[in-house]
Amino acid sequence: MQYHVDGELVPENEATVSVLDRGFMYGDAAFETLRVYGGAPFEWGAHRDRLAHTAETLGFADAVPDDLRERIDETLAANDLREAYCKVSVSRGVQPGKLTPDSEVDPTVVVVVKPLPRGGRDGERVWDGPAAVQTVRTRRVPDEAVPSGIKSHNYLNGILGRLELRKSAGEGDPADECLLRDIDGNLVEGATSNLFFVTENGLRTPSAELDLLPGVTRDIVIELARDEGFPVETGAYSLDALRNADEAFLTNSTWEIRPVETVDGIEVGAGPMTKLLQRLYDERVEERHY
Amino acid sequence: MQYHVDGELVPENEATVSVLDRGFMYGDAAFETLRVYGGAPFEWGAHRDRLAHTAETLGFADAVPDDLRERIDETLAANDLREAYCKVSVSRGVQPGKLTPDSEVDPTVVVVVKPLPRGGRDGERVWDGPAAVQTVRTRRVPDEAVPSGIKSHNYLNGILGRLELRKSAGEGDPADECLLRDIDGNLVEGATSNLFFVTENGLRTPSAELDLLPGVTRDIVIELARDEGFPVETGAYSLDALRNADEAFLTNSTWEIRPVETVDGIEVGAGPMTKLLQRLYDERVEERHY
Repeated sequence: MQYHVDGELVPENEATVSVLDRGFMYGDAAFETLRVYGGAPFEWGAHRDRLAHTAETLGFADAVPDDLRERIDETLAANDLREAYCKVSVSRGVQPGKLTPDSEVDPTVVVVVKPLPRGGRDGERVWDGPAAVQTVRTRRVPDEAVPSGIKSHNYLNGILGRLELRKSAGEGDPADECLLRDIDGNLVEGATSNLFFVTENGLRTPSAELDLLPGVTRDIVIELARDEGFPVETGAYSLDALRNADEAFLTNSTWEIRPVETVDGIEVGAGPMTKLLQRLYDERVEERHY
Repeated sequence: MQYHVDGELVPENEATVSVLDRGFMYGDAAFETLRVYGGAPFEWGAHRDRLAHTAETLGFADAVPDDLRERIDETLAANDLREAYCKVSVSRGVQPGKLTPDSEVDPTVVVVVKPLPRGGRDGERVWDGPAAVQTVRTRRVPDEAVPSGIKSHNYLNGILGRLELRKSAGEGDPADECLLRDIDGNLVEGATSNLFFVTENGLRTPSAELDLLPGVTRDIVIELARDEGFPVETGAYSLDALRNADEAFLTNSTWEIRPVETVDGIEVGAGPMTKLLQRLYDERVEERHY
């Protein structure tokens, strides 16, 4: 593979950053994970806007290059990819040796891609099956400590959640996703996904006012459901509400809509609402990109 | 300068890590910052133990190389340094493309050094003057989200605190250190320092049971004070307690003991206790290393 680093395409084994890069030293970087269908990044505008929001919150708004989309296109072309995973990172780069950021920023911009199967109506899911989900002790970092709406390279919170899955699995298979609660015990999100569940009253998902990152896929799912006239409620929900749900699923750009098979070993499962939303999502992908 | 990367000494401009290194992608790495006096890392045992603790908490205990001390010594020798700052990082390295860590770890080990003035009795301080300290809105990440006792490359919490200083300074000089409180409002620590203050009843510092990283220098200061028969109390303190203190200072391995001149613009200042502890600390450095 070839990656885009600092304005140039380089072979994977030469794609490096300085050990002094603040992305490496402090996780001081913004990123987005995109899915590419038919050669084009899906919902590019939403991802670009969120990247800009993260960079602005971290005080390096001007560091996001204007030609970012071109860099993505070049990287896809260089690897002859039309169906891909794509991760775009903008770090604060190398600065004089202090923790306090300097306002002069020479950012490090990285585009990494890898092949994925075709999406859309006749596409193939990237996951092997519905997700086994497990609640973990690790709580979501609260908004007062690190703004929840940013997507940064500080990802230990989710990694610690995932590590709990490995520990608790013993010799068996670990769960696919950890479910994080906030400090108050409300369900918020998975390490890399948003959570939805279905009750007799409609679709529910934890409110973006809680400590969570409202994903681009989450927004689309809410829109698709409302367009069909299904009630969508956002709020603060307990684990019991999820366990008693008729259906549940996870969303992110790569997984799209992934049904939840079990929560803490208790069956929840897919159902008609999940299947319909998957079909509507596939159609949206199809319309826009094939 | 030459740095040590993955077992080899390399020139600074060749000291790089892969863009796929989990240290860069997620801040998934442990580190220690050390001060070197007379050619030897001060309190090496304490730093080595804490690095091991961080790595163990992150699930890569075995990744810390046995010859880490030799790598530091080689780096110092290659740069002809006897008085230095030294940062040692161990990242989880490159792994298959998933957030969930793989138990097979090929770590990336990095040693970075830079020259510092001589420490000890006739030494020179690394800071220009006493610190102006400012409380910030950003709250310390709670232990339930990321264990407070680990020193990882997830450093945005402190960076966000420091950014508030820049914003609130406008055209003036920003404060030197931000003071973080926990979610409940208790004083905990600075972005890169521990806090002490002096009242008529003795020396006080936020308890290690709160959400803070108890530094190696903090432990030494507590020990030095107790050896002199001064009462040391650890507890949960409000900002008012600090503002009403007779003296206050910050500690870390590089700064050693740095007096606090002002808190939110209100004078606190150094005094006899701070000066005595600085002298005792300098003597400890002198005894062990010159």
